[in-house]
Amino acid sequence: MTVTYSSKVANASFFGFHRLLLRWKGSIYKLLYREFALFVLLYTFLSVVYRFFFSEHQKRLFEKLSLYCETYAEQIPVTFVLGFYVTLVVNRWWNQFVNLPWPDRLMIHISSCVKGKDEYGRLLRRTLMRYVNLTSVLIFRSVSRAVCKRFPTIEHVVEAGFMTPEERKMYENIRSPHLKYWIPVVWFCNLASKAREEGRIQDSIDLQNLLNEINGLRAWCSTLFGYDWVGVPLVYTQVVTLAVYTFFLASLIGRQFLDPTQGYQGHDLDLYIPVFTLLQFFFYAGWLKVAEQLINPFGEDDDDFEVNWVIDRSLQVSLLAVDEMHMNLPTMTKDMYWN
Amino acid sequence: MTVTYSSKVANASFFGFHRLLLRWKGSIYKLLYREFALFVLLYTFLSVVYRFFFSEHQKRLFEKLSLYCETYAEQIPVTFVLGFYVTLVVNRWWNQFVNLPWPDRLMIHISSCVKGKDEYGRLLRRTLMRYVNLTSVLIFRSVSRAVCKRFPTIEHVVEAGFMTPEERKMYENIRSPHLKYWIPVVWFCNLASKAREEGRIQDSIDLQNLLNEINGLRAWCSTLFGYDWVGVPLVYTQVVTLAVYTFFLASLIGRQFLDPTQGYQGHDLDLYIPVFTLLQFFFYAGWLKVAEQLINPFGEDDDDFEVNWVIDRSLQVSLLAVDEMHMNLPTMTKDMYWN
Amino acid sequence: MTVTYSSKVANASFFGFHRLLLRWKGSIYKLLYREFALFVLLYTFLSVVYRFFFSEHQKRLFEKLSLYCETYAEQIPVTFVLGFYVTLVVNRWWNQFVNLPWPDRLMIHISSCVKGKDEYGRLLRRTLMRYVNLTSVLIFRSVSRAVCKRFPTIEHVVEAGFMTPEERKMYENIRSPHLKYWIPVVWFCNLASKAREEGRIQDSIDLQNLLNEINGLRAWCSTLFGYDWVGVPLVYTQVVTLAVYTFFLASLIGRQFLDPTQGYQGHDLDLYIPVFTLLQFFFYAGWLKVAEQLINPFGEDDDDFEVNWVIDRSLQVSLLAVDEMHMNLPTMTKDMYWN
Amino acid sequence: MTVTYSSKVANASFFGFHRLLLRWKGSIYKLLYREFALFVLLYTFLSVVYRFFFSEHQKRLFEKLSLYCETYAEQIPVTFVLGFYVTLVVNRWWNQFVNLPWPDRLMIHISSCVKGKDEYGRLLRRTLMRYVNLTSVLIFRSVSRAVCKRFPTIEHVVEAGFMTPEERKMYENIRSPHLKYWIPVVWFCNLASKAREEGRIQDSIDLQNLLNEINGLRAWCSTLFGYDWVGVPLVYTQVVTLAVYTFFLASLIGRQFLDPTQGYQGHDLDLYIPVFTLLQFFFYAGWLKVAEQLINPFGEDDDDFEVNWVIDRSLQVSLLAVDEMHMNLPTMTKDMYWN
Amino acid sequence: MTVTYSSKVANASFFGFHRLLLRWKGSIYKLLYREFALFVLLYTFLSVVYRFFFSEHQKRLFEKLSLYCETYAEQIPVTFVLGFYVTLVVNRWWNQFVNLPWPDRLMIHISSCVKGKDEYGRLLRRTLMRYVNLTSVLIFRSVSRAVCKRFPTIEHVVEAGFMTPEERKMYENIRSPHLKYWIPVVWFCNLASKAREEGRIQDSIDLQNLLNEINGLRAWCSTLFGYDWVGVPLVYTQVVTLAVYTFFLASLIGRQFLDPTQGYQGHDLDLYIPVFTLLQFFFYAGWLKVAEQLINPFGEDDDDFEVNWVIDRSLQVSLLAVDEMHMNLPTMTKDMYWN
Repeated sequence: MTVTYSSKVANASFFGFHRLLLRWKGSIYKLLYREFALFVLLYTFLSVVYRFFFSEHQKRLFEKLSLYCETYAEQIPVTFVLGFYVTLVVNRWWNQFVNLPWPDRLMIHISSCVKGKDEYGRLLRRTLMRYVNLTSVLIFRSVSRAVCKRFPTIEHVVEAGFMTPEERKMYENIRSPHLKYWIPVVWFCNLASKAREEGRIQDSIDLQNLLNEINGLRAWCSTLFGYDWVGVPLVYTQVVTLAVYTFFLASLIGRQFLDPTQGYQGHDLDLYIPVFTLLQFFFYAGWLKVAEQLINPFGEDDDDFEVNWVIDRSLQVSLLAVDEMHMNLPTMTKDMYWN
Repeated sequence: MTVTYSSKVANASFFGFHRLLLRWKGSIYKLLYREFALFVLLYTFLSVVYRFFFSEHQKRLFEKLSLYCETYAEQIPVTFVLGFYVTLVVNRWWNQFVNLPWPDRLMIHISSCVKGKDEYGRLLRRTLMRYVNLTSVLIFRSVSRAVCKRFPTIEHVVEAGFMTPEERKMYENIRSPHLKYWIPVVWFCNLASKAREEGRIQDSIDLQNLLNEINGLRAWCSTLFGYDWVGVPLVYTQVVTLAVYTFFLASLIGRQFLDPTQGYQGHDLDLYIPVFTLLQFFFYAGWLKVAEQLINPFGEDDDDFEVNWVIDRSLQVSLLAVDEMHMNLPTMTKDMYWN
Repeated sequence: MTVTYSSKVANASFFGFHRLLLRWKGSIYKLLYREFALFVLLYTFLSVVYRFFFSEHQKRLFEKLSLYCETYAEQIPVTFVLGFYVTLVVNRWWNQFVNLPWPDRLMIHISSCVKGKDEYGRLLRRTLMRYVNLTSVLIFRSVSRAVCKRFPTIEHVVEAGFMTPEERKMYENIRSPHLKYWIPVVWFCNLASKAREEGRIQDSIDLQNLLNEINGLRAWCSTLFGYDWVGVPLVYTQVVTLAVYTFFLASLIGRQFLDPTQGYQGHDLDLYIPVFTLLQFFFYAGWLKVAEQLINPFGEDDDDFEVNWVIDRSLQVSLLAVDEMHMNLPTMTKDMYWN
Repeated sequence: MTVTYSSKVANASFFGFHRLLLRWKGSIYKLLYREFALFVLLYTFLSVVYRFFFSEHQKRLFEKLSLYCETYAEQIPVTFVLGFYVTLVVNRWWNQFVNLPWPDRLMIHISSCVKGKDEYGRLLRRTLMRYVNLTSVLIFRSVSRAVCKRFPTIEHVVEAGFMTPEERKMYENIRSPHLKYWIPVVWFCNLASKAREEGRIQDSIDLQNLLNEINGLRAWCSTLFGYDWVGVPLVYTQVVTLAVYTFFLASLIGRQFLDPTQGYQGHDLDLYIPVFTLLQFFFYAGWLKVAEQLINPFGEDDDDFEVNWVIDRSLQVSLLAVDEMHMNLPTMTKDMYWN
Repeated sequence: MTVTYSSKVANASFFGFHRLLLRWKGSIYKLLYREFALFVLLYTFLSVVYRFFFSEHQKRLFEKLSLYCETYAEQIPVTFVLGFYVTLVVNRWWNQFVNLPWPDRLMIHISSCVKGKDEYGRLLRRTLMRYVNLTSVLIFRSVSRAVCKRFPTIEHVVEAGFMTPEERKMYENIRSPHLKYWIPVVWFCNLASKAREEGRIQDSIDLQNLLNEINGLRAWCSTLFGYDWVGVPLVYTQVVTLAVYTFFLASLIGRQFLDPTQGYQGHDLDLYIPVFTLLQFFFYAGWLKVAEQLINPFGEDDDDFEVNWVIDRSLQVSLLAVDEMHMNLPTMTKDMYWN
């Protein structure tokens, strides 16, 4: 479910963003509390062992190791690589949002260019519209886990009314080892072409516009498929993950409070709780979580796209527009600025 | 209200930007003075306590804590993460500006392609144009707080003349749990289609162009809705905010002037007023404020888009263009370069 | 006036860019020499006071202050914020260039689709073309200071032949508190529509293409207006300016040569002239000047767009294309590769 | 073969990315193990020589050299230049993916606009479609090593059924020293034009849409060719490679564990295995490998595009759509939301 | 001549990029060897003077100067500013490549929509196509030094067969102080319009498509002109160049090996050859060279676009497509997957 908070930040105000820090749903806390717990646990374990179980000699050794780790932790350019990587992932995420197949463009064209208030006309418009929605459902099934759960088989798609049993039979008779979301698109075009011949679509221009629009929708679908098929190169993701994990491994040891009496530089104070290291954990791990959450926006994360809602809205709205609202116009009256 | 200052910086001149530093409206000072006051207050409080109320032992401890905080304050990569985050927010902000639904393209097409200087023709053109403006108003109501205040209910939209009472009835009779800004678009298309049949629109080409234009406007609207619905992922905003707040928390303690007689490195001088820390506060907090102000450009900040002005201008200009100016041409005369 | 130097750097050569360092027009030196002089003056003043007028005690104090400033000067992330800010400004600058309203697309369509070599045909084509140029002039007047100087009133536009007195009267009779650059566009469309009815434009397709083209031009105009109206958020500009100015303030004190005999680290040498600090001044202040110069490319800086030239070229070329060159074709002869 | 892992990361979960670290195919380990082995070998060699074969004097010298290398290793801005370079390469890589020539748009248009269920109609549609596929194959042959292996000569293309022997003869008779992938495009257009004259394509609008679509496909092909022809400037690649290799050269010596008894700063501990240096190797070399793998996505890397699959899918699907499915529609029946 | 190396890096392999390091043509070595020699010379000169000609006192002074330079060399943010600048230049470079005016789109449309296999038809198609090529040549002459050398005067263009002598006369009779590459475009459109009237172009739709395509080509040309006219702001280039040059100036002195016996920190070792400084020179100067080479891609650098080849290819291929191949189709035969 998408986390919408823009109305909360409409106006910049006194420490405006601090309210956002107190949310749970979709928040960094919800995403990170398990990793955070683990980190704290390990840190505490090391701390306790160092303070109470190590011999003096072991302590000295551990201190050296800790200083060594601290030095190298600082050399890992986590910030930089995260910056570039997250920018890449965020761009891909938004492009996927932009390519969600909405039926709105098509429903407008169908509603105004496919004539006839009789039953045949209604059937024609509704069927065309249904093919559009069916295409979306088919592509969503292959990219979104949430939709796949809702429609685990084609049978479920039929039951939900997106497909008739006869269409299903034809669909399954078309033998192709590849994804078949383009089949309803071809049906749509052939049906539109037939409607043109029957005079329900008046003009070639009208027909071509319809074909271009459905081709646009198909292009959105195939873009979604492309994003699913060809992800961020695995190596890049691994490099970033390795960098962050290495950093925290180094931090676990390198950010321990060492015995102040040993006089190591920067270790004059024993606070027991490493406030800044923990904040840094939230900071870097949170940044990586941004990527983790957005790299596949069709999952079931708090911030993923609500694709099932999109499907329902599309069906409801588009049938309304092409059927009930077809040529059902309010009377024109003079507006209040007439003269 | 948008803060326009480009004419002030038309020419690069002697310390050209310094004049911008002296403005109040929309300025960093206006946005930050409360946070700044709080920061100064807390800083002073700590400073006073350290100087006058702490025992020697407490002072030594505080000094160590301060040095510890200073070290870590420098390790927080605020600059970097702010750079990437603000770039993201600024891009989204500008895209929203680019997608504001202006009626200009449509008014030109309607004015020249919907024929008839008689009353019916006028009514047709004005009604089409009104539907366009109505669509904008409906979408603005759902994304902009300022417009929502102006038109809290549909009744207000009717009163302002964007909708007739009959249209309102039809609008409300269409049962859909979803946003209904697309309804006037469907009306528009069906009305245009009707005008085509009545010969007011001469050609299918003219009609299709109108449909494509209105679809373009609808796309702008749905893009605005998309930006409102799917914001910058909450986690990202939280990560950045956390980083900045942590930095200032660390600064409060870590940037105190310590007793110069203790000989801590870099603490030879007690200036009482931490000029550079305060400037840094302006700098980082100001950068975050840029994001805070732009993340929802439809609020009531000094720098937010003047959507209510857009609505008024759209209505006035578009009715002018399709009615008063329709086929009202100046006589053609030879220009001064005729030969 | 635009500074064109690309032919100077066509080939990468031995220290290829060094020739660019020796130019004056549009150069960093011309833009910065006043600020540079001021900086040197202040630096020298401080240096002289420190060396000759301060007592020993004051010297020690000043040295501490200098070291303090030096430390903090390095902490201001000028580079980073400048990098992001200048990238933003440069992108906006180029987008404005891309959106300059050239009449070339339209002149080609008008020349080949508006028929008739008789006087009426010529008048038609010239008038249409004049409306296009008029639109550009009107929008340029509102965004460019240079054009505004050339045409301070509408009267000047009429005198320059872009508008007839009758058109001016009509233009002024249209009451609207908003910018009126769209008026000639509406005239254009209505005139084209009339020409279609009179058969001068043969086909709806031809007409629609003309309308789409003029709409494209209008979109460029409104984009220019948008860039002028909604600038880079003031806060962002202030943040960057503050950062740079603060840096130089800190540099003035922090980069003084301190008495080498005091043995401060990194202060073993007294060069009197702070070569690198001055170069750094050129570097950072120059980078900021890039932004200052480009933030409004319609001013009168050396590197601003030559909008007045654009206006002249547009008028001359477009009238040539639609009138003198209309259907004035060279005889077709076989080319030299015929067989 | 593309490595698809998006379904693995649909939901952000407890250390969500760690599962990705354990994959072999397409992983950083598979790409880097040879370089890694070499690096370890050299490091060990140096370490052994330093520890066991050097005289005391040589040891001291080596230690100085090592410290010197360490200092400079840190000054090489590998991170930064890699960040910018990889961003460039990733953008180019994705643009190439976006420009893969899919036949889907065309097959839809051909299926619905080229009439006739008789043999001639079928032949027409299949031939048009074959030309489309042939164009893709020809361009893929010139950019992709995998496709070039599959179709080493034009004869292989003929054998695979993309070209008839007669077409091959004509193709080879056209004398041009340049790439000839545009030839089937011209055939396509001329054939479509012929079909228009024969009435198989009803309307000029239909024909023009087909021409525009094939032109779009041709544009994709020529874009792919452009990316192949004009790569990332060699100098840029060399600069980045030099930086990374230099860094590792410096690391080999500079990151040796020096004798702790010599008391060099930061060298109090001898761990024998330089964990962090090895991780850093994975990190930087992995980042460079991202670029290496993506700079030509038409090779045979694990993460390269499966172009041969694209060719097979295109042929199978497109023939299905224009032939078997042409005007083969399911009966329209009322959907379940009819009333 | 473009340096194509993508086939060399099709597969990521063992130290895959190292092969690229050994190329000469278009390489960093070829571009930099002169600057490198100069740098080495100066460095050696200073080194020799310091070692053999300076008195002890002068040595001490020089050492202080060297340390001072070293400190400041590190403060110059060369990497950062180069990163942003090179990104800008690379983007502009690629956009120029994308806007090269290829005639392919037009030749397809002309070949299929301008009817007639008789001589007049051939003449028509060839003339139209020649105008397209002429436009490209005219714009290339004004932006590319290589093309300007090939066609120093219009006479050369006529001789090469792009223009007939009569066309040249008309071209020169059109008085305009501005670039005249748009003249053949106007001829093209008027000729196409004439062909429409004569029935050679069947339909307004066909004509309009041709006009739109030629307008697209004209837009590419004017974009190229725009990139040539309005370059990267001179100030930006100067800032970057200054930064790099300053850095190397500082390096010359600051990276000298100082007498190890003086015990300066980090100066315990005298290697005589400053390996890392030299590598750094290659690195930074090479990065700047990337910009220098790409800032005007129409020169004669190894990596510049081969515009003369583009011109030849365009002419040869486009005449083939519109003349020899016009309606010259292979017989349709059933493909091998017919059933």
